[in-house]
Amino acid sequence: MGIQTVIAELSTFLGQRVSCSKSELELHGQSETHFPLMPPDAVAYPESTEEVAKIVQACARHRIPVIGWGVGTSLEAQAQAPKGGICVDFSRMNNILEVRQADMDVTVQPGVTREALNEDLRATGLFFPVDPGANATLGGMAATRASGTTTVRYGSMRQNVLALEVVTASGEVIRTGSRARKTSSGYDLTGLFVGSEGTLGLITELTLRLQGQPEAVASAVCAFPSVGNAVAAVIDTIQMGIPMARIELVDVASVEAVNAYSGSELDAAPHLLLEFHGSDAGVAEKSETFGAIAESHGGAGFEWATKAEDRNALWAMRHNAYHAIKASRPGAKVLVTDVCVPISNLAQVIEETCLDLEKSGIHGPIVGHVGDGNFHTSLMFDDTDATQVSAVKAASNRMVERALAFGGTVTGEHGVGLGKLNYMEREHGSGWAMMGAIKQALDPENIMNPGKLVPPRN
Amino acid sequence: MGIQTVIAELSTFLGQRVSCSKSELELHGQSETHFPLMPPDAVAYPESTEEVAKIVQACARHRIPVIGWGVGTSLEAQAQAPKGGICVDFSRMNNILEVRQADMDVTVQPGVTREALNEDLRATGLFFPVDPGANATLGGMAATRASGTTTVRYGSMRQNVLALEVVTASGEVIRTGSRARKTSSGYDLTGLFVGSEGTLGLITELTLRLQGQPEAVASAVCAFPSVGNAVAAVIDTIQMGIPMARIELVDVASVEAVNAYSGSELDAAPHLLLEFHGSDAGVAEKSETFGAIAESHGGAGFEWATKAEDRNALWAMRHNAYHAIKASRPGAKVLVTDVCVPISNLAQVIEETCLDLEKSGIHGPIVGHVGDGNFHTSLMFDDTDATQVSAVKAASNRMVERALAFGGTVTGEHGVGLGKLNYMEREHGSGWAMMGAIKQALDPENIMNPGKLVPPRN
Repeated sequence: MGIQTVIAELSTFLGQRVSCSKSELELHGQSETHFPLMPPDAVAYPESTEEVAKIVQACARHRIPVIGWGVGTSLEAQAQAPKGGICVDFSRMNNILEVRQADMDVTVQPGVTREALNEDLRATGLFFPVDPGANATLGGMAATRASGTTTVRYGSMRQNVLALEVVTASGEVIRTGSRARKTSSGYDLTGLFVGSEGTLGLITELTLRLQGQPEAVASAVCAFPSVGNAVAAVIDTIQMGIPMARIELVDVASVEAVNAYSGSELDAAPHLLLEFHGSDAGVAEKSETFGAIAESHGGAGFEWATKAEDRNALWAMRHNAYHAIKASRPGAKVLVTDVCVPISNLAQVIEETCLDLEKSGIHGPIVGHVGDGNFHTSLMFDDTDATQVSAVKAASNRMVERALAFGGTVTGEHGVGLGKLNYMEREHGSGWAMMGAIKQALDPENIMNPGKLVPPRN
Repeated sequence: MGIQTVIAELSTFLGQRVSCSKSELELHGQSETHFPLMPPDAVAYPESTEEVAKIVQACARHRIPVIGWGVGTSLEAQAQAPKGGICVDFSRMNNILEVRQADMDVTVQPGVTREALNEDLRATGLFFPVDPGANATLGGMAATRASGTTTVRYGSMRQNVLALEVVTASGEVIRTGSRARKTSSGYDLTGLFVGSEGTLGLITELTLRLQGQPEAVASAVCAFPSVGNAVAAVIDTIQMGIPMARIELVDVASVEAVNAYSGSELDAAPHLLLEFHGSDAGVAEKSETFGAIAESHGGAGFEWATKAEDRNALWAMRHNAYHAIKASRPGAKVLVTDVCVPISNLAQVIEETCLDLEKSGIHGPIVGHVGDGNFHTSLMFDDTDATQVSAVKAASNRMVERALAFGGTVTGEHGVGLGKLNYMEREHGSGWAMMGAIKQALDPENIMNPGKLVPPRN
């Protein structure tokens, strides 16, 4: 009926670029984590903003759901289609439109991945800093308000998106923000769309801040007697105003998984992985200061790498941690948690989490963006064992409650999607209803990624 | 009628803390710039969030306008009352509620000024960096999305507000954000209220990021043969990734005004005023690198100050520039412009502006937050001379058009209020209607600072 009419309408201008093939629907109904298959009714591959607008206009006329799709690396089912509808796959909108070196900004289409952008920027002396690990698309990263290992220094997508072009729920094309570095000109619509997970419109173009490639980069690993000591070293470093480009925590279980997977030989102790950016002299000075701080907190086996290949090996190890952890329990499902708390509470929250998991008999290695107070546990379970499933869900629930009790948020960077929907009222109180009121005002027919982020409508 | 009922109702719980005295109404109907008197019907002085909520509830029942008031330093008539109503003066809500050193954050009431906060923080080794010049309240700075001289390094209020407590248009108390350093938990309501100029609710509590006081600070002035040379030096410095804490431009006319007012003896040339924060060695290295860049662009008379009293004198001179400029034409009215453009276009935009002003016979000295692409001209005029008034307005209008043509914004930091209302549609297109839809959803009776920022309602 409605959906078939829409698909027919889309094929009039997309031709073969709208598909209902089973394999494509399944591909676009999946997630990297534990959610079941939720396929759309069709997948559309637009090549321009105009085509996206025409897709949304067709869906609006027939009240058909519209879901954006980057490369499918979201972890909370943001891009899955629980109510069916049209999945808008941005893979054919992957052009880098303009790099402006003097202004250190770039305009891209949403399907450009962060690695493709940085590859393209290599010769310019500039780079785009937000690094969530996965090679996600920039449109998806903006929609999810992604962050990652470098956020402690360069901010998340919230700080790095200057302007957007968006197709709204009525199929209108609007522009938010500008290339000016700051503005006081009205409501921050750019900030409203960043993190809105496609529930208010589809991002069709992004203008992003770039950074100068640092003259010198130094990376290091350092073992600590406990997570508490490692976090104390981080707090001291931040308070001294020493700008770290990355500072990551891996716990003992993660170290063991990483050693087994990557062939590294780290001691069985919590480690910090660090990176400093700056001038040669600046990096050397920061490294030395950090070394002294680490030592005062029991840090040991401290080793610096300034050669690119050594540094790349180190961060490849960190980026592969999730795969290493998965590989440590072949066949197991994984629920990845994502709480973020004020850093003064981080050590205690991690400690209580470890005790809780131990008591519950759950294997859940920890990695964390410790400079931001954000950490992930990968809770492993057999999804055919109902007892394990409910134990893991209960532990995840307690972790969320613990984060909120300690002044934190239920999701530091993975977003809401379906996975965190049940915690939104708990975190935001009446603020969640206010999000619903904004959604109602901007998408009255509830066609943009329905069922996600805001209070469900009847 | 409605208003008298509300005033009577407010006096039942505020007692003498609601006032209709002529002097107080006039005080709260003024602005620092060229707007005429627009007094409210009464001024209320709440001492708690509950009292603010009760004030708004009373106004909501009778559809009476509610306007927030900090210390009245806004420049675009944001706090004036063109439709009358109740002015909520936050001067009695000026407590610093909690400083958390390990987390480097602070929770304050909205009536705390930035200088009072920094005075209080002095012993902690921390400071709050946003510095618009005026000793504004933090509530007002958040509402206006203020920035200033240090934004190039530390960001504007947008980057430095972590969480808010807000009384909404219905008089409900909500909390947005948390003390977590980052979050992907739903729409960025904190970001929506920052810069909303009291049109969506009243901010009753703020949690702000703090910075560590730098180990070393160095300031400098440097003369350049032209504005273009000065801007070229700034672009090179930013591209080399040298973090500047402040980088300000003053043109020849401003230098002359400042010399006359402060007794300084700067050469009659465009100058950059700079500040670096860091370690002793870091600051020395950055200063040296900048010196070489400045020299390559014709910079001369380069002089560093690391002693606190010399630095304070330098920045007092900069902060007094507006008063110095005003004093250069006693009795003249001033229209302060506030455009912000991509930095690669800044030199050309300033150059065209100067030519335009010269051709129009308007005296308009320039100061600018040049690292952000933001600059101000102080257009002097005699408000009893209709020709001068219309010439100044026309020049301001051309400046706005020029900024938009060069990819910029009509207001870098002063906000919309009444002064920039007419340019909103020009800058945002349909985005302005979207702002109106959000306003309609969150303040359906249009009682929160009506007549400002969003499209007027009939």
